[in-house]
Formats: sequence, C-alpha cells, structure tokens
Amino acid sequence: MDPSASGLIHRLAEAGQSHLLQFWGELSPEEQADLNLNLQGMDFQEINGFFKNAMETSSSSKQEKMDTRMEPVPREVLGSVTRDRECLKDWELAGLRCISQSKVSALLLAGGQGTRLGVSYPKGMYDVGLPSHKTLFQIQAERILKLQQLAEQKHKIKCCIPWYIMTSGRTMESTKDFFSRHNYFGLDKGNVIFFQQGMLPAMDYNSKIILESKGKLSMAPDGNGGLYRALGNQGILGDMERRGIEFIHVYCVDNILVKVADPAFVGFCEQKGADCGAKVVEKNNPTEAVGVVCKVDGHYQVVEYSEITLATAEKRSADGRLMFNAGNIANHFFSFSFLRDVVQKYEPKLQHHVAQKKIPYVDAQGQLIKPDKPNGIKMEKFVFDIFQFAKTFVVYEVLREDEFSPLKNADIQDGKDTPTTARHSLMSLHHRWVLNAGGHFIDENGRRVPAIPSLKDGTDLPIKCEISPLVSYGGEGLEELVREREFHPTLMIDGQGVHELVKNGV
Amino acid sequence: MDPSASGLIHRLAEAGQSHLLQFWGELSPEEQADLNLNLQGMDFQEINGFFKNAMETSSSSKQEKMDTRMEPVPREVLGSVTRDRECLKDWELAGLRCISQSKVSALLLAGGQGTRLGVSYPKGMYDVGLPSHKTLFQIQAERILKLQQLAEQKHKIKCCIPWYIMTSGRTMESTKDFFSRHNYFGLDKGNVIFFQQGMLPAMDYNSKIILESKGKLSMAPDGNGGLYRALGNQGILGDMERRGIEFIHVYCVDNILVKVADPAFVGFCEQKGADCGAKVVEKNNPTEAVGVVCKVDGHYQVVEYSEITLATAEKRSADGRLMFNAGNIANHFFSFSFLRDVVQKYEPKLQHHVAQKKIPYVDAQGQLIKPDKPNGIKMEKFVFDIFQFAKTFVVYEVLREDEFSPLKNADIQDGKDTPTTARHSLMSLHHRWVLNAGGHFIDENGRRVPAIPSLKDGTDLPIKCEISPLVSYGGEGLEELVREREFHPTLMIDGQGVHELVKNGV
Repeated sequence: MDPSASGLIHRLAEAGQSHLLQFWGELSPEEQADLNLNLQGMDFQEINGFFKNAMETSSSSKQEKMDTRMEPVPREVLGSVTRDRECLKDWELAGLRCISQSKVSALLLAGGQGTRLGVSYPKGMYDVGLPSHKTLFQIQAERILKLQQLAEQKHKIKCCIPWYIMTSGRTMESTKDFFSRHNYFGLDKGNVIFFQQGMLPAMDYNSKIILESKGKLSMAPDGNGGLYRALGNQGILGDMERRGIEFIHVYCVDNILVKVADPAFVGFCEQKGADCGAKVVEKNNPTEAVGVVCKVDGHYQVVEYSEITLATAEKRSADGRLMFNAGNIANHFFSFSFLRDVVQKYEPKLQHHVAQKKIPYVDAQGQLIKPDKPNGIKMEKFVFDIFQFAKTFVVYEVLREDEFSPLKNADIQDGKDTPTTARHSLMSLHHRWVLNAGGHFIDENGRRVPAIPSLKDGTDLPIKCEISPLVSYGGEGLEELVREREFHPTLMIDGQGVHELVKNGV
Repeated sequence: MDPSASGLIHRLAEAGQSHLLQFWGELSPEEQADLNLNLQGMDFQEINGFFKNAMETSSSSKQEKMDTRMEPVPREVLGSVTRDRECLKDWELAGLRCISQSKVSALLLAGGQGTRLGVSYPKGMYDVGLPSHKTLFQIQAERILKLQQLAEQKHKIKCCIPWYIMTSGRTMESTKDFFSRHNYFGLDKGNVIFFQQGMLPAMDYNSKIILESKGKLSMAPDGNGGLYRALGNQGILGDMERRGIEFIHVYCVDNILVKVADPAFVGFCEQKGADCGAKVVEKNNPTEAVGVVCKVDGHYQVVEYSEITLATAEKRSADGRLMFNAGNIANHFFSFSFLRDVVQKYEPKLQHHVAQKKIPYVDAQGQLIKPDKPNGIKMEKFVFDIFQFAKTFVVYEVLREDEFSPLKNADIQDGKDTPTTARHSLMSLHHRWVLNAGGHFIDENGRRVPAIPSLKDGTDLPIKCEISPLVSYGGEGLEELVREREFHPTLMIDGQGVHELVKNGV
C-alpha cells in the first residue's frame, strides 16, 4: 500500500510527476489505496513520451501547408449508391455471401460518454423518443439479428456476425450490465464481446499530469483510435482470428441510421480487394463542419474541417461539386489482415493528437479550480489515423438522409444532431420505405398525405412511422405488408405486425 | 349608398351571391357604406367564372399523371455558377452593361403579409436582428444603390435601376409610408414605383363568397401571379416602356440574400437571348419541400413538391444528382417584350390555383365560426405560371448558401426559415467574404478562428460580421479593407469604415 515500498516514488520522481503525491498525507486510507493502485498501473515514461511527441507534432506548422498538399479521392476508388446504382445489387449479394460464411464482424465504438448529450450513462443506452422507445443499442442489435437472418435465408447456412463493443473504463460496467439485463436483445451472448479502450491522463503545458482532486488523476479515454491498442492488449485480434473473421465493419454508437455490417459496403470493399474503406456522405456546403477523406502527399487521410482554409473548402470540380466532398462519418471497413498489421506494426508509430481543453484541477493549496481558458491537453488518437497505411483504400459514398444522423447534443434551440433530429431522421426514412413499398398515409380527414408534406407551419415534422429492424434491415420485404394499403400515423411495423398506435384520448 | 339604387342587388342575385347582404339591416351606416363600396367594385360574374375554372382544373386528376410527363431541365439551357465558372465574369460584365444603359429594373413581390412570421406589418419592414438592425427593404434598397454605382463606375454614365414594388391592398399604405419615412433609403423617390396586386374573395365549395364578419367579405391577395394583371391595369407596363426598360428582375421580399438585379443573372439571360429565366438552387434531398423547374409536355413549368410521388422525387441522373433538382426560389428574369405579351395575351387564359383553407366565417345566425377542417378555397395565380409561354427559357443555378435564405416563420424550436436562420445566413456569407478577401478573425484569446468553426457546442453560430451593401454588393472591393488584418467579432464594415462593435460591458 505504501508507495515507497514499490518504487513508485522513485518512478514518479524520475518522470517529473512527484506532485501527484503532494496530498498523500491528507487522503483517507481508501483514497490512498485507490491512488496507489492507479499509479502502479501507469507507465510514466511512456506517457511523457506521448506528451512530447504530441506537442511537437501539434506545434509544427502542418496546418499552413495542408491546403497545397490535398488531393481529392479519385473516381476509380469511389463506389457510390447514387452513381453506381447498377452495381449495388452485386455488392449487396457479395456482402451477404461473406456474412453467410460468418466472415464479417461488427465493431462498435462506444467508449464516449454522453457529456454533450447531458447524460451520465453510455450513449448507446439513450432513448431518442421513438414510438417503440428503443435505445440505440437495441436498434443496432436488432439490425444484426435481421442481417444474420437475411444471410441465412439466402444461403441456407447458419451464420453469425460477432459484435465487438469497445467501451471505456467509464462505460464498461454499465454497458455490460445493460446488455445483460436486456438479454443481449436476442443475440447470442457468446457473440457479443466487450472490450475496453485505454485511458490517458490530462496534462498541463509543462507536461505535469493534472489532479482533478487531491487523490485522483484527471483521466480521459485515449480517443477512438485507442481501438487499435485495445484490440491487441485485450486479446480481441486473437478472438477474431479464432472465429475466422475476415472483414470488420467499424462504426460509432451515435448514428441512429447506421447500417451495421452493411452488406453493400462490405461487398463493395471485398469486390475491390480493399484492405481499408471509408463510408462517406457528400459534403454540399463548404462550411459544413465535417472532416473530409482525401489524399495528402499521396496517402489517404481524413482532414478535419478546422485544418483547411475557406478557399480550399470552396474548391470545386468541373462538375460543380465540392472538390473535397467525401464527408467522413466514422464508418469504416477493415480486412482482418490489415487490422492485424495496424495493431502490430503501424499504430504504435503514430503520435497522439492534442486537444486543448479547460481541465478542472486542484492547485497547490488543494483548491479545485475551473479554468476559463484552456490550461492543458488531452491526448487522443483517431480511428482514421491509420488510413495512410492501407495498400488498397476505397471510399463508399452513401446518402446522408438514408444512413447518417448522429446523436451528439441535447435538445436545444437550433440544435444540430439532437434526439429530435435523430428521431425525425429515422421516422422519415421509414416513411419513405413505406411509400416506396406502395403504402400510403392518410390524414385525420381520410385524405392521402403528399409524399413531401407542406412545410407551411415552418417545422419539418415527419410522418410518425417506425419499422422494427427485425422486420426490415434496409427497406426490404415491406411490399406484402403495405402495398396499396392506407395508414394513419403513428404506424408501427414490428413483431406484432402492422398496426396504428392509438393517440391519447382517441 | 343604397345597394338597390345601383343595381347591386340585381347583380348579386344573378351571380348567386345575395347572401352577402343578409346582415345589411344589422350594420351601422359606416359598415353599410364600406360593404357597398367593396361590392360595387367587384365583378361577380368574373369571380364565379374564376371559381368554376379553378375547381375544374383542380379536380381533374392531373396529379396522377404528372410524374410520367416530367422531364428535367436540359444542360444546354442551364447556366451554373459552379459548373460554368469560366463564363461568370462575362455574364456579369454583360449585365453591368445593361444596367449602365438603364435597361434593367427590379420588381419586388411584396404583397404578402407576415402572418406566419407573426407580425401585422409587411415583411419587408422586418428587422431580423442584424448588428445594423436594417430591415429587408433597406438591405435591398442599398443593394440597388450600390449596383447603380458599380455600373456607373464601370461605364462612366449615370444610370438608374427603377424599383417596382408590388404590394397588396393590405400592405400598400404601410409600405409607402415606411419608404417615405426612411427617405427611400437614399434612392431617388421617382425611381421607386409602388403598385398594388388584386384581391379575390374566399369562396366556399358551393361557390358562395365567404363573409368574415356581417359586413365584410373574406378577401385575400390573388397570388404572386396577380403581378401580371396588376402590371396591366395599374399602368406599370407603360411606365417601363417610357423608361426604356428591357429586362426585369422579379424577386420575392423574404429572401435576405437576394442579389437584386443580379448582373450575372441578367447578363446570362441577355447573352442567351432569353425572354424568361428562372434562378434556382440545387435540391439535394428528395423530400425537401421546394418546387422544381422542369419540362412538362415540352413546356417549362414549376412542379410543386406536393404534386410528385416520392419515386419521382428520388430519381437520379447518371451523375448521381437528383434528376429534378432545379429548386425554384421565386427569382426570375423577363424581357420586357415577353412581359408585355404575358400581360396582354397569355395571362388572362390561365386558371387560378385552388388552395383549400380553413376560413373563418359567419354562419346564417351571424356567429363567427373558426372551422377545424378546410371549408373553402382561396384562388391564386403563381408568378411562374407563365413560364410555359416563353420562347427561349433558361435556368440559372446559384449556391443556396450565397443567395437564398427566405424569412417565412417566427423563431420556434427546430424552425426553418426564421429570423435566426436569415440573420445567420447573411452573417455567414459576409464572414466568408472577409476570409476570401484575406482578412482573419480572432477569438478573445487572440487566436485565429478556423474558417470552419468547431461545432462542439452543438449550435451553428456564425462569426458576427455584417458588411453594408453600400460597401460591397457581392463581396467585391473588400481586399483593401481587410487583407492581412485581424478582427474581433462583431465586425461591421459600413459607411463609417471598418470597425468592431464593443460588447456590453467590455
């Protein structure tokens, strides 16, 4: 228990982090034990090295030069749901075949906490207020169930899509508990594999680790790029290898429209022989705050919106589209062998990015200070940092309104990416599925509602309609349920069949 | 004063509208005088004819067939600011030349009231909360002033852009008064010409004119297509002819970004020898509620979003763009000779459109009823109804973020087209002008703000920046003012020069 006994004092002194014990004498025995345990597990020399490299990279004037080094994604590596419509069916079939052979897994990035969303639990447990009140986790689980079923029906073999879920130290227990309480939403418990990304301490500009209280370091997850280190040190690569996984679909928990293990995307990448692929949506407005996939010095990467000048953001190709329009949505494909190389060879070479933050800290007098200017950094890697190592990189462009609506912020005036926008996106998509399957909606007077409703009231309220993923993964299979039928919203299509929700008091 | 004396009773009886006098005996002498005056001025046979034709057209099943008859705008009639960049300068020069010859006028459609906006005065008088607190009318007036100046500087001749402003019976007096009180915002009073669009009564489904009170008919403006009738019967065509106007730019009051008498648009249309042109923005999302310019049975027209099926709205060209993507923004070009032909020959042939409405009315007992279902119709013509008569029709595609942000609704949660969105659009455009002219913005810590700000707080708050139209019409002429300079928002560039607004308490 005593830090001196273990050589910790010496290690701290060597690393210039002795201040972490400055309040030792004021801590309770329990607090001492916790702090000691945390410090024993840390490699201070490594952390100092991360800091040094990250600060050096960040202070070099790479931003100035970025614009001249950027090239757009060439057409030949691009697959597009709008421009390659004749190939879509083939790609989807190819992907379903891979799934039926149990070669495809889904990998969920769920290490973040819902801080901006204003909740203290993992984002995947959020209910955006759909008629069914399903959480993001449940929606994704049911998409996997349905996709397994579709592949099995097509190929008459039993198959499985293992679901790897990366949490962080802060979200692991509540996430596992949530899945357990909900019986893994019908999935086989053995095919839902949780693992944990690493944490790194926040540091001030003098490379000192920040104390958030007298006995506690200020820790944060090491970015979604912490994935790669975690895959190695938690035995996930080995698990994938044992299962014979060849293709991995990596995505972020917050996108309510995510097509988990999307067979068309997987099939496109497989057909192109890609080791790495990024799903993107077209960026239409130069000042939209989205990173773009492009080539820099001949290697693929994501350039963040804050790294480029307006002139570059406004550049256009001859066809009038923005030249840098491949909007990154944190939705990626990896071959297993590429992922293994990344984990074993490439990722350790990468520096962390520096995020300047206002980090609450205790000062030398032990007072908690909440700074009003950035006073230190968090160190992160990004999941897309490893694009540069791909030998065959491809880009797959999908429609935003069909596939991307992230949940990031609480409902506020003029808010973007809120529970309301997420809910509306999903209901609007399902409304379109019903129309395209030949169904119709009628209003309270029995008149058919136009496909595109009038917006005279100034709000973009979609028809209320929700279709369970257990009924349809991507709009398929609805004709027999809705063709030539008329529905009053709220329309639900789920395990109980096709039914209209009765409104309060009606 | 007595309706019987004038033959009014007879005319009403013949037209089946005798019910309009049913409360005559209960009216005060003033109310009787008002009602009598209103009725004397109306041609009931004509109104009944409008009703009959409008209802017949509306009940024919044209909607069913529309989808199969639609064709997109061919590339050869399209000019695009993103796809024809090499021509832009020439078009602008051609337009400026026309302006310098005083051949161009602007025509403002300002007959609507700000009902959805929640104000009782004309929309043009609205202040969206810019740092300058300029109204829409003032912004537009100053753009005209600046454009005259640019044309004069270029061609060394004095010129003028007459501004025709169409109001309705409800907005005429307050509009004229507002301009007068503000000294026509610096324009020559003689070159601001007000005229008034017609009004039509609302009618129930049995062709009876609706009373909104015992002595008052329910009247509404006859749609922005009422323009053409008004141009003829108020002597505006004659005024244009006397002034030698050859080209007319028609636009709607509510678009805060409108480039009044846009020289590039006018020049494009003139160079193409067009008699009629429509400025459009690209529609990117199939379910966006915007009408599209297209060909139907070989003639150009605007198809409203409620008239097409989702399948048609989702159709795409080989390049992946929506096939019907020419989003109408009520921003048009006419040659004078075409406009004259429209007024004299074509427009009278057009039927009114039927808008089903919930129209408050007094019942036979004199009680005011507010129906909760549509109980009657308003009859309207649309300004674009006459596209079909054009011999050389062209389409000019511009960027939404640069040219289109309408003010339609009050500020509400998730509202579209509100004072907030209008204000943000203008400031965002001016922010981009400053960046592209070589200026920079810095934050409270003296650090340069990235061109595309981070949206981590979930709101899309633009840099506060406003540039007077008297300084720059379209971003030109700013280099000498801002190049290599750094600014704290709020930045104002106006007649007082370049200055930063001091915040409260700072």
